[in-house]
Amino acid sequence: MNLSAYNYKTYITVRFADLNAFGIVNNNVYLTYFEIAHTGYWKQLTSWSSKTKGIMIGKAEIKYVKPIYLNDEVYAYVRTARVGNCSFDVEYILTLKKPEGEIICTTGKTTCVFFDYEENRPAMIPEAHRERMIAFEALEVE
Amino acid sequence: MNLSAYNYKTYITVRFADLNAFGIVNNNVYLTYFEIAHTGYWKQLTSWSSKTKGIMIGKAEIKYVKPIYLNDEVYAYVRTARVGNCSFDVEYILTLKKPEGEIICTTGKTTCVFFDYEENRPAMIPEAHRERMIAFEALEVE
Amino acid sequence: MNLSAYNYKTYITVRFADLNAFGIVNNNVYLTYFEIAHTGYWKQLTSWSSKTKGIMIGKAEIKYVKPIYLNDEVYAYVRTARVGNCSFDVEYILTLKKPEGEIICTTGKTTCVFFDYEENRPAMIPEAHRERMIAFEALEVE
Amino acid sequence: MNLSAYNYKTYITVRFADLNAFGIVNNNVYLTYFEIAHTGYWKQLTSWSSKTKGIMIGKAEIKYVKPIYLNDEVYAYVRTARVGNCSFDVEYILTLKKPEGEIICTTGKTTCVFFDYEENRPAMIPEAHRERMIAFEALEVE
Repeated sequence: MNLSAYNYKTYITVRFADLNAFGIVNNNVYLTYFEIAHTGYWKQLTSWSSKTKGIMIGKAEIKYVKPIYLNDEVYAYVRTARVGNCSFDVEYILTLKKPEGEIICTTGKTTCVFFDYEENRPAMIPEAHRERMIAFEALEVE
Repeated sequence: MNLSAYNYKTYITVRFADLNAFGIVNNNVYLTYFEIAHTGYWKQLTSWSSKTKGIMIGKAEIKYVKPIYLNDEVYAYVRTARVGNCSFDVEYILTLKKPEGEIICTTGKTTCVFFDYEENRPAMIPEAHRERMIAFEALEVE
Repeated sequence: MNLSAYNYKTYITVRFADLNAFGIVNNNVYLTYFEIAHTGYWKQLTSWSSKTKGIMIGKAEIKYVKPIYLNDEVYAYVRTARVGNCSFDVEYILTLKKPEGEIICTTGKTTCVFFDYEENRPAMIPEAHRERMIAFEALEVE
Repeated sequence: MNLSAYNYKTYITVRFADLNAFGIVNNNVYLTYFEIAHTGYWKQLTSWSSKTKGIMIGKAEIKYVKPIYLNDEVYAYVRTARVGNCSFDVEYILTLKKPEGEIICTTGKTTCVFFDYEENRPAMIPEAHRERMIAFEALEVE
């Protein structure tokens, strides 16, 4: 869990509507936080814009370490950990900024498939985007 | 608030994720309940299916009378109260089924515009649908 | 619709999860945007913190003028337009920042009731908070 | 993926608000579907009711096999696959009812911790509930 391995970080605004009856952010909302972070990351890297192709999540994993409260200052770290031809893995860390420093509250991973919604099947990641992901993360190509 | 003036009624499943930190259904979710009810109503009346035209809400009003809890049995009543050429008004009542009978917990109204998302402007309500709405509600035409 | 009549303004982050199948922010989410804005406004004015008393919305009205898209820059303006003993009215404007200037995309109003969740009934607005609302908005007292 | 290994099944109502801009149920909503199913399962088994103790999810995994559309008939299967002292594992399958039969669209797993929200730490699962879970699932005790 090395935050310095992440090149992208964004602030997450906790909404009152994200809370559940226990006064903490509900479980399902964490995937939304990952999505907010990855949308920002993806936009910065690729300026992607398409109505027919996009990212479909094949698998998601979330480890809940600490609960999130309404007034928490939440940051999301995102990185692409692997890039294939049609798919890639994304890793996430959510942190809480506390007086004593930044503490990890959640970690997660999604396996993403580049998807053609018109053809209804996986598609090759456009080469230009693939190269930017690899360069940005200094990844070794498979 | 005459429930017998409504010809369509549907059951609403309260989700744990609908609750807020006070343990009651959050305000924004009521419009979702109206939407669930109107989607069912509209489907029964018109079997509408289009990716480019649909209903856009121009105005919404909600009166919150009683809070809704997780285990409440919620029913939504829907009716079209007015049909114009490009727009129509929909009224809603949410009730809670209690041992002593059905009590009103919310009332609402939306002004709906039939909208062409490709042209980005209001469109005439297809005549067949307009007629079904008028017949179903026994409305007087404007 | 005079933006200069508003003393509080905040930025709203549009989430991908806020969009509906037409690619625009879904109707129910607007109340969440109002809530985000009012939560910030209320926090600034009153540093309110209680698990047993809070704001309950009695009535909400929303006028949808322009749709909101994912990449829109959205601002929310909030003001208290009336303060009573147990209730107050809040008005909202959502704007979109465009190259040609700021355009109004939504207006809204909520009638809020200060509520005691333990007693399950309306409560007097604490005098200190009431005074700050009146001073901040330069309201005439009823 | 043996559906007959599951003793609890419930219908899931897809809401229009669950859809994303691609017209399919958004990723974060799947955890909500799991939650709906587990809430029903838990209620049937234990008639649990507490404001201070409840289930906290420690880890969640979701495998997305097929997308879910608005008009799909969705069923959720739930079972407890392991029961410890303070934690238990729950497995989920979401299926779509099609003319040709029921097809699996999602599988998932959550590691649940029985949690005392007042003490802010894990708590022993009440013995009566633990026994009902074991009996209902015909589990071998650890």
